[in-house]
Amino acid sequence: MALTDRTNPHDVSLNTDLYELTMAQGFWESGMVDAEACFNVFFRDNPFGGGYAVACGMGQIADLVSNFVFEDDVIDYLASIQAPGGGPMFKAGFLDYLRGFHMRVSVWAVPEGDLVFPREPMVRVEGPIIDCQLLETALLNLVNFQTLVATKTARVVHAAEGHPVSDFGLRRAQGPDGGLAVARASYIAGASSTSNVLAGKIYGIPVFGTHAHSWVMAFPSELEAFRAFAESMPKNCVLLLDTYDVHQGIKNAITVAKEMEERGERLAAIRIDSGDLAKLTKEARREFDAAGLPYVKISASNDLDEYTIQSLFAQGAPIDSFGVGTKLATCDPQPSLGGVYKLSATRATHDSPWEPVIKLSETAYKRTIPGVQHVRRFYDASGCPVGDMIVDDAVASDDSTSMVDVLDEYVSYDMGDAEPRELLTQLVDAGEPSGVPEGIEAAKARCREALMRLDPAVKRFLNPQTYPVGLELGLARTRSELARRERRASGRS
Amino acid sequence: MALTDRTNPHDVSLNTDLYELTMAQGFWESGMVDAEACFNVFFRDNPFGGGYAVACGMGQIADLVSNFVFEDDVIDYLASIQAPGGGPMFKAGFLDYLRGFHMRVSVWAVPEGDLVFPREPMVRVEGPIIDCQLLETALLNLVNFQTLVATKTARVVHAAEGHPVSDFGLRRAQGPDGGLAVARASYIAGASSTSNVLAGKIYGIPVFGTHAHSWVMAFPSELEAFRAFAESMPKNCVLLLDTYDVHQGIKNAITVAKEMEERGERLAAIRIDSGDLAKLTKEARREFDAAGLPYVKISASNDLDEYTIQSLFAQGAPIDSFGVGTKLATCDPQPSLGGVYKLSATRATHDSPWEPVIKLSETAYKRTIPGVQHVRRFYDASGCPVGDMIVDDAVASDDSTSMVDVLDEYVSYDMGDAEPRELLTQLVDAGEPSGVPEGIEAAKARCREALMRLDPAVKRFLNPQTYPVGLELGLARTRSELARRERRASGRS
Repeated sequence: MALTDRTNPHDVSLNTDLYELTMAQGFWESGMVDAEACFNVFFRDNPFGGGYAVACGMGQIADLVSNFVFEDDVIDYLASIQAPGGGPMFKAGFLDYLRGFHMRVSVWAVPEGDLVFPREPMVRVEGPIIDCQLLETALLNLVNFQTLVATKTARVVHAAEGHPVSDFGLRRAQGPDGGLAVARASYIAGASSTSNVLAGKIYGIPVFGTHAHSWVMAFPSELEAFRAFAESMPKNCVLLLDTYDVHQGIKNAITVAKEMEERGERLAAIRIDSGDLAKLTKEARREFDAAGLPYVKISASNDLDEYTIQSLFAQGAPIDSFGVGTKLATCDPQPSLGGVYKLSATRATHDSPWEPVIKLSETAYKRTIPGVQHVRRFYDASGCPVGDMIVDDAVASDDSTSMVDVLDEYVSYDMGDAEPRELLTQLVDAGEPSGVPEGIEAAKARCREALMRLDPAVKRFLNPQTYPVGLELGLARTRSELARRERRASGRS
Repeated sequence: MALTDRTNPHDVSLNTDLYELTMAQGFWESGMVDAEACFNVFFRDNPFGGGYAVACGMGQIADLVSNFVFEDDVIDYLASIQAPGGGPMFKAGFLDYLRGFHMRVSVWAVPEGDLVFPREPMVRVEGPIIDCQLLETALLNLVNFQTLVATKTARVVHAAEGHPVSDFGLRRAQGPDGGLAVARASYIAGASSTSNVLAGKIYGIPVFGTHAHSWVMAFPSELEAFRAFAESMPKNCVLLLDTYDVHQGIKNAITVAKEMEERGERLAAIRIDSGDLAKLTKEARREFDAAGLPYVKISASNDLDEYTIQSLFAQGAPIDSFGVGTKLATCDPQPSLGGVYKLSATRATHDSPWEPVIKLSETAYKRTIPGVQHVRRFYDASGCPVGDMIVDDAVASDDSTSMVDVLDEYVSYDMGDAEPRELLTQLVDAGEPSGVPEGIEAAKARCREALMRLDPAVKRFLNPQTYPVGLELGLARTRSELARRERRASGRS
């Protein structure tokens, strides 16, 4: 959609599913304005059949919370919505309540760029249940996709073995925001640059780009097109060789590279965007080397992903950098993380004790984890993570190093003498940002460090080892008891 | 990302790949400011293995063109970009040129909501080559995804056999724009409503939603939660039954439905969001009927797509409406249309004749179609489309009813006495919108009509029949000649 369809940036509060508002009205009407809730964002399976995910989007949560207000035009729109059975959907008193609304939630999250694993809280939100509910959709919309695309990028960058990867995905993204989310998350997760100029302006990400096939077609011949580009852009000259015929394209690029040398300039690189990239890049390397142009780099693009890049290197393709577009921006073949937002505890007021709650399911795997959860990540002596423990302090046992699997309560892990550190950090305190937000460079550095320290067996694409995530013993016990109680309450023990 | 990251709605001109700007500078510097180009947006294969696509996003093109200006802060940012080889990427003279820039392109497109098939121009852009190039990325970003999601929706709606389908996909979309694009395109392609409140406000799409599992978990028991919701929302009461146990959920909902009847109200529907939907919806229907509540409708959700909906009906599931989220918003399992923007003709100035151009490829299938193309859609006596012919008037032969396949030049179709109508309509004339833009209701009506008239053999999911799209004889000849000429020019005949 055109950016200009946005009538009001504060419409952020309407970037939501209607049921958040109908529930908010319901809580308001049921006298639960002071009731508080604890919700967690988590996913159930690592994307792409991999062994990990890269948390992303967290850096924008504090802004989302601060900007979550209902402007007059938003209230007017809500007042105009009719209920299916007739009459206005929202009551005047509730709309008055929204008019003065400010989010009072507190938020903790996995630091952006750090690793996150199935079932553990990626984001925890506490506060008035109305506020928590109103935040749900926008929060999921923010972290679901960015975490997915950061994870995809980490895989692509891993396959690229240190060679730069540039995000080329804007044209296949879901509108401008989609493109921005791809650029931001992919940069955090290891991409070196993006083709997306707006992302360069907003986030300060290095931008990259040279020319398309159309440039070549707009001139009487490929050689003239290459010459014109070299003259216009001597300091950013990457020639695209496959408009007509790559073999001839290599010859034309060599001619232009030699002409540039005579002017004291250098052809930076060539790019190949179709055909057998392994074969053609080897031919190009051979010919450029033979022509005394070993400094001309080779860039490849065309429907690349982690598997094609891995295969290209396995074939010995002499590729120096990659442009990755469609499959990065759409997270092909798994375009959704499936992150959910589940209630895990409630209390009648801010001063009451938390009551853990659970959602059952026909399958044990979908049963939620109750309580006010945080995560202890255990590190071995060399600083590498060896397992995560989900903990609710209110029910914690004395044993601080054993945990049980989230699926099978009989399997238990022993963290031994690994050192625990708290994973979640606070981003928002009662509606106010906690401290100064970090920039994306900090998240990028964190991601690089975290991936470097992760066991290669967890990082591999084929049959990755499962990183241990478990429940602290007391929490596991609470979960079993709650499940039994709820099953009994619904008449099926 | 948060909506508030947008510093300026006119940043629309930066929603682009960097190479559009470097090429624009190159054309400016090569004395080609008056050179004109003709570009086409097209895709090579129908998405989802289907037989058609639904054109979408076109209704926003005129806005995109009008708003494509470079504000001061955008120019400042561009001036700050450094070339990889050192020095500023953009020259002061070119930035001055951009400062006064207004798009002067003319645009024709398949009317929004109408059907579009592989290889034919979905959008045609003519005008100064700089303008055409600058528009590329934003245009693809606009029509690629919306066409994909409209097509996905048409398939889901087809499977739903007239039962309402609501878009529930916002939380899995690529940011706010992604959610808006999904809501807009899915409504045009046949969805009845969306959960996305912002889409309701901006586009006037009916919004739908009731409550989540968290509502039930926030109360001491499911029965109390159902009662509270019915009291708060008697005119919009759809109860979600699967928080703990669906069998008990049905009993609790019947209790509440009876209580509502006593107050002169009616429970509108129940929703089931997990488990064996065929089995559980049959049980619910049986129990509600037995309780004298035949009017209570049954809604289903949970990872639905066209295939699961078809399977549910094949099993006789008594479902009245569907909420479709993740797989709609992410267009699973094919998250990209792969639409491209290819140069097909150039001319030195606005008054010169067009010269068709072609891009070759190692595979004949990827060879582009040259010329200033438009499309004749042929209709039989009952008004049903029977084939599309891509035509360039400048090279058209006298035979107006025969055409050749885009792939195999020896297969020919005969359109017989079917009546042709022009498919593409003008949206923009030299930078100005052509007439008043239609609303999305008009596009929705067009889509319904077009899908109704499409041969069911083309609509089916399994092995759909191929709808004929061909080149007019003169255009086919021009294409062969150009390909031969370019092959010869690159030394490989």
